[in-house]
Amino acid sequence: MAGLGEFALIRQFFAAAACAAPASGVARGIGDDCALLQLPPGEQLAVSTDTQVAGVHFPERHDPSLLAQRVLAAAASDLAAMGAAPLGFTLALTLPAADPVWLEGFARGLDVMARACGLALIGGDTTRGPLNINVTVFGRLPAGQALLRAGARPGDLLCIGGATGEAAAALPLVLGERGAHGAADAQLLARYWTPQPQLALGQTLRGLASAALDVSDGLLADCGHIAEASGVRLLIEAALVPLSPALRAAAGERRALQLALSGGDDYVLAFTLPPAALPALVASGHDFHVIGHAEAGSGVRLVDGAGRDITPAAGGYQHFGGGDEQA
Amino acid sequence: MAGLGEFALIRQFFAAAACAAPASGVARGIGDDCALLQLPPGEQLAVSTDTQVAGVHFPERHDPSLLAQRVLAAAASDLAAMGAAPLGFTLALTLPAADPVWLEGFARGLDVMARACGLALIGGDTTRGPLNINVTVFGRLPAGQALLRAGARPGDLLCIGGATGEAAAALPLVLGERGAHGAADAQLLARYWTPQPQLALGQTLRGLASAALDVSDGLLADCGHIAEASGVRLLIEAALVPLSPALRAAAGERRALQLALSGGDDYVLAFTLPPAALPALVASGHDFHVIGHAEAGSGVRLVDGAGRDITPAAGGYQHFGGGDEQA
Repeated sequence: MAGLGEFALIRQFFAAAACAAPASGVARGIGDDCALLQLPPGEQLAVSTDTQVAGVHFPERHDPSLLAQRVLAAAASDLAAMGAAPLGFTLALTLPAADPVWLEGFARGLDVMARACGLALIGGDTTRGPLNINVTVFGRLPAGQALLRAGARPGDLLCIGGATGEAAAALPLVLGERGAHGAADAQLLARYWTPQPQLALGQTLRGLASAALDVSDGLLADCGHIAEASGVRLLIEAALVPLSPALRAAAGERRALQLALSGGDDYVLAFTLPPAALPALVASGHDFHVIGHAEAGSGVRLVDGAGRDITPAAGGYQHFGGGDEQA
Repeated sequence: MAGLGEFALIRQFFAAAACAAPASGVARGIGDDCALLQLPPGEQLAVSTDTQVAGVHFPERHDPSLLAQRVLAAAASDLAAMGAAPLGFTLALTLPAADPVWLEGFARGLDVMARACGLALIGGDTTRGPLNINVTVFGRLPAGQALLRAGARPGDLLCIGGATGEAAAALPLVLGERGAHGAADAQLLARYWTPQPQLALGQTLRGLASAALDVSDGLLADCGHIAEASGVRLLIEAALVPLSPALRAAAGERRALQLALSGGDDYVLAFTLPPAALPALVASGHDFHVIGHAEAGSGVRLVDGAGRDITPAAGGYQHFGGGDEQA
């Protein structure tokens, strides 16, 4: 195929996303050697990079529009976890071929999620190779107000911004191991393919939460990251972990709890909250669930209604039999 | 393999690079959901993302230390092209396996180039899949002073920051098609594997050059980008294009010019300079070569000593039989 023609095609496909959200803070977007960002004095830029690989993070056979939404949402969730307001993203796309049908779908999905998140496409790189999608996201926040993993104190409440486990419960559907039937399966699939990063909740939590992150590796594993960074133990009460009706229907009660604790790919916020901040968060109108609290010690403990330790041995979703290492 | 152990290994390997250049402007580096950057009022952040894929941009068999240097240098060259001062970078590494020998070499090379460029590793993502390396670089510069591709005016001189063609001449050595012998081949290989981004020259060109970019796709192709963005014709005098002795020795006179014009992977700056700015650039002490000038018209023309048009038909180095599409 004629080289330049294909790249003109790619440029055209992505023009929509680039124009989707002309964010303040973007002084120059796509088209030169670098994009230029400029923030008002006193603001910081939050940056996170996230790669997804065909056959590892998503199936080789997929809907490119849904894939684009999932990749961008997963990256944007890291902005939510810091309490940052969305600004823009770069896209580094490695493709086995310039397939116009795939590109059209991917660009369409990217546009949908970019608009939903308020993120402008500010730069990119397209190259040939096994399918690999890297998104680097940019957000802004007042200096010193970022939500960090360190900061939880004994006595703080442990909260999550939504139910977990549904994305993991969708895996048999995503992999085609069983067909999707009815509204419950549709909900699971939507949670897997089009997670909604909790950007508004994250910004609300600035000045309220003592620590926060987004749940991507599984609730227990990610709470472990807060516990380690903060130097506390997090105690989760199993009976307080929300299990959605769709999750229960797909997985049954016992397996539902297991997926909610260790499933991964949830992209809801987990955070600790000094009890004094609870009324303000309730007043904000955001949905959230108190699932436990922080105490002196280390690690994460799961307890039943009688206070007995029922912590499972294994952690969350991992690659290399390990886990993605993200910063 | 035990999951967390491997990632602890990766973390340890990259700790050196993360600490290499604790840049001002990095409020928080690796370790939370996002890195945080903060610039003084009146400064802009320059951002560019760059992916290299095994078997496409570099051979499957390679020295990981050299590879790391090449990948980071290629990305940093985009900062040089904008006149930005180096700040930091994120690394998204997709690896088929966590091979300690490869990782040790890669981390060592990354550290070398990060120090040479003054770039701090501020964040990353490591995942499993076919080898794919994405670097997103960050630089800073006073608002409104970025070197853009648009801005060349008829009468401006066309200059390059160093000789081109050596990286392309190294390809037969890189691919093992012939063995390396002597100092000339060593120089070609060094140009391919460890290009030196012209960050100091780029910053010097702020306020002097009317347009700039870094030569990565080949001199003619990249000059075409300046010509298009600026709405001028760039006229290159073949006799003024510098051909290094190493390039001449490896390729012969005729092929040397061809590689210098269309080879790619050079990572030297090409820029246009109003004649009035020439004394200041000479006084700065930076090496550069005047190779032509801008005139009214469009496109790029190569002329011989008699002013005859000898422009070759084809462009520079391209993927997909096309080219990387970078922003």
